[in-house]
Amino acid sequence: MFVEDNRVAMARRTFLGAMAAGVTGAGAQAADKLSARLPAAMVQPGGADVPYGQPSSHEAHVQRTLSTQSGFPVWRTPLQHQHGIVTPNGLHFAVHHNGVPDIAPERHALRIHGLVNKPLRFDLERLMRYPMVSRVHFLECAGNSAANALSPTALDESLGELAGEVSCAEWTGVPLSYLLHEAGLKEGAQWVVVEGADAGSHSRSLPLEALLKDALVALFQNGERLRPSQGYPMRLFMPGWEGNVNVKWLHRLEVTDRPAFTKDESGLYTQVLADGRIERFAFHMEVKSVITNPSGRQTLLEPHGFYEISGLAWSGRGRIARVEVSVDGGRSWVVAQLHAPVLDRAFTRFSLPWQWTGQSAVLMSRATDEHGKVQPLRSEWKRRYAMHSFNHYNAVQAWRVRTDGRVENVYA
Amino acid sequence: MFVEDNRVAMARRTFLGAMAAGVTGAGAQAADKLSARLPAAMVQPGGADVPYGQPSSHEAHVQRTLSTQSGFPVWRTPLQHQHGIVTPNGLHFAVHHNGVPDIAPERHALRIHGLVNKPLRFDLERLMRYPMVSRVHFLECAGNSAANALSPTALDESLGELAGEVSCAEWTGVPLSYLLHEAGLKEGAQWVVVEGADAGSHSRSLPLEALLKDALVALFQNGERLRPSQGYPMRLFMPGWEGNVNVKWLHRLEVTDRPAFTKDESGLYTQVLADGRIERFAFHMEVKSVITNPSGRQTLLEPHGFYEISGLAWSGRGRIARVEVSVDGGRSWVVAQLHAPVLDRAFTRFSLPWQWTGQSAVLMSRATDEHGKVQPLRSEWKRRYAMHSFNHYNAVQAWRVRTDGRVENVYA
Repeated sequence: MFVEDNRVAMARRTFLGAMAAGVTGAGAQAADKLSARLPAAMVQPGGADVPYGQPSSHEAHVQRTLSTQSGFPVWRTPLQHQHGIVTPNGLHFAVHHNGVPDIAPERHALRIHGLVNKPLRFDLERLMRYPMVSRVHFLECAGNSAANALSPTALDESLGELAGEVSCAEWTGVPLSYLLHEAGLKEGAQWVVVEGADAGSHSRSLPLEALLKDALVALFQNGERLRPSQGYPMRLFMPGWEGNVNVKWLHRLEVTDRPAFTKDESGLYTQVLADGRIERFAFHMEVKSVITNPSGRQTLLEPHGFYEISGLAWSGRGRIARVEVSVDGGRSWVVAQLHAPVLDRAFTRFSLPWQWTGQSAVLMSRATDEHGKVQPLRSEWKRRYAMHSFNHYNAVQAWRVRTDGRVENVYA
Repeated sequence: MFVEDNRVAMARRTFLGAMAAGVTGAGAQAADKLSARLPAAMVQPGGADVPYGQPSSHEAHVQRTLSTQSGFPVWRTPLQHQHGIVTPNGLHFAVHHNGVPDIAPERHALRIHGLVNKPLRFDLERLMRYPMVSRVHFLECAGNSAANALSPTALDESLGELAGEVSCAEWTGVPLSYLLHEAGLKEGAQWVVVEGADAGSHSRSLPLEALLKDALVALFQNGERLRPSQGYPMRLFMPGWEGNVNVKWLHRLEVTDRPAFTKDESGLYTQVLADGRIERFAFHMEVKSVITNPSGRQTLLEPHGFYEISGLAWSGRGRIARVEVSVDGGRSWVVAQLHAPVLDRAFTRFSLPWQWTGQSAVLMSRATDEHGKVQPLRSEWKRRYAMHSFNHYNAVQAWRVRTDGRVENVYA
């Protein structure tokens, strides 16, 4: 079988040589014989390319999954199909409370006002002239993994469906500190009310000090302008903070001395603790990890075979320091390999070789960040928060590999 | 003007408060008054999102430009629109000698044969089970910037048109060494003939030692499967080497004791030196940089204004160590800031603040890599190669900013 293939290849090379020498008659005959054996792509010229490339039609199943359970559309990244740490723009998760505005950039402006010496207005042209910086960061919805937090039994869903409200990209924009310093901060300035130009004027109050340190007015994502569903033409970007404070379609920043307690921060995005107290303005997404392969609804075809356990870890507070993996439901843990680059508040890829013996196995990953914060078990997380709380869920994800190779979500 | 805007915002907040309290009659009236002043996006719900996201319709001009001057299609990245170091997959450059094959992954296989102990065949399912690694690397066509090498006068084109046959992405795949070691190398193994499953069976002979060190069988680009025009379902990836050896639609690797001198390496991709000798198997792309902003065919609107000079540098031999920028046609040079992360054989972003005085100015960038290799001037490059040579052109790119703000390509 193999020798035959090799002979075909040799014959083809001879044929190509004959073509080059102008012996087309003999060549054509050889090609007829060969065409039955060669892949179709090798016996007919390929198709045309397009100005803006698209994925293969054979990968049409790799798309975001839509959930409307919350009353608004939530588009989730199919993390089980992502390798590496960059999420392509077409698959970046998105949550829309008021649809996706279609904003003509020449009519859009960003205003800075409130406790500033000189209110400012930036159109796109002006903003694009400021120095920009680029940073690779994850972005995660506060409500990511809500089903695992709320559902009494583990739902049999894919990783993307369970925990795909997180993605990672290279964000480029103007440090907000440049603009705020140009406006000049007045005494008493402590907070900034950040508002989007969507139909619900989504808005959040954010502490000024943190914005001056870290915030970008983001204009680009993975090298191209923001997609409409990511806030085109501009959004706020706060590395490591929950998704909804990264206000999309950004058009107004009001510097204030206190939070505005907008509808978006006094309602959906607070968190009730087990003792009834409320955690508000809790912005950081905590340390978390998921095994992407093998993961929910995948099937391992060959028992007694080698598989690479591969996954993603991230922390809203800094770099990932360590990821441990268990293949026995948490009884024992092995330190996984972290793949470079290990970046601040970005996806970090980890992996561990695994020989599956065909027995039922429960796979788990547990990440620790550079500040020593460790992912809790689900039971620990549930003890901390009220029964109906679901934001900032970062507990260990467990997958059971059944004896028939099917992988399913379990609580462990 | 600003105060008015602010008052509108305040009025709207009051209106939203009224809505929340159920006072809809008053609210509706207020909304009518407001709607004339608010951006359209804020007074009507936004549109729906799609499972695989696309760029804004307002950015339709950001696309690859097609050249067919070489007799085959060359799609160039609009580098002047890229910020950061990641090129989005839709804008990655591509060169096709025989069109873009449409390959069904379930019918595709990679074969390894020749001087090996055990010839091997990998279908996609099997290959996907091997451990993978991810690396951010640039990829550049050997013929990038050919116009600057060949044209006696500098063409007035955009950066993308002049030098857009280079892009940068996160590539993920299986190290080829894993597969070659599994096949087992026989004595005498020195080269590998790498063949693509396209209609011209594009093939190159590559030295085994370098492949064992660096080559990937790449399956993913920026987190998703390769696009068809990048070799779906798999391509060879050799960091830092000229584009065409990164064989797309990879289906055959023949281990040999000598190069095959295929049509693709004995013809187009050799380089004639000024003294008539021929440089063959010169794989590395040399150190190079371009200022992306301001660049060809852009216009600076405001004289006596601040502009950020921003650009990209890369080297096929390692990391970028330094980029110098001149704003006076090379008489004086200033060291630019390199933006983190500075990765091995990847785009590195550099920048320098610049105050334009409205005078004519010639901007240039000159990169040095970690091995001390420095970009030559155009005159130096031309002295080294024959008149008609154009591959591996890496000379300093110069842009003249005219007094009317127009930026144009010049030889300097």
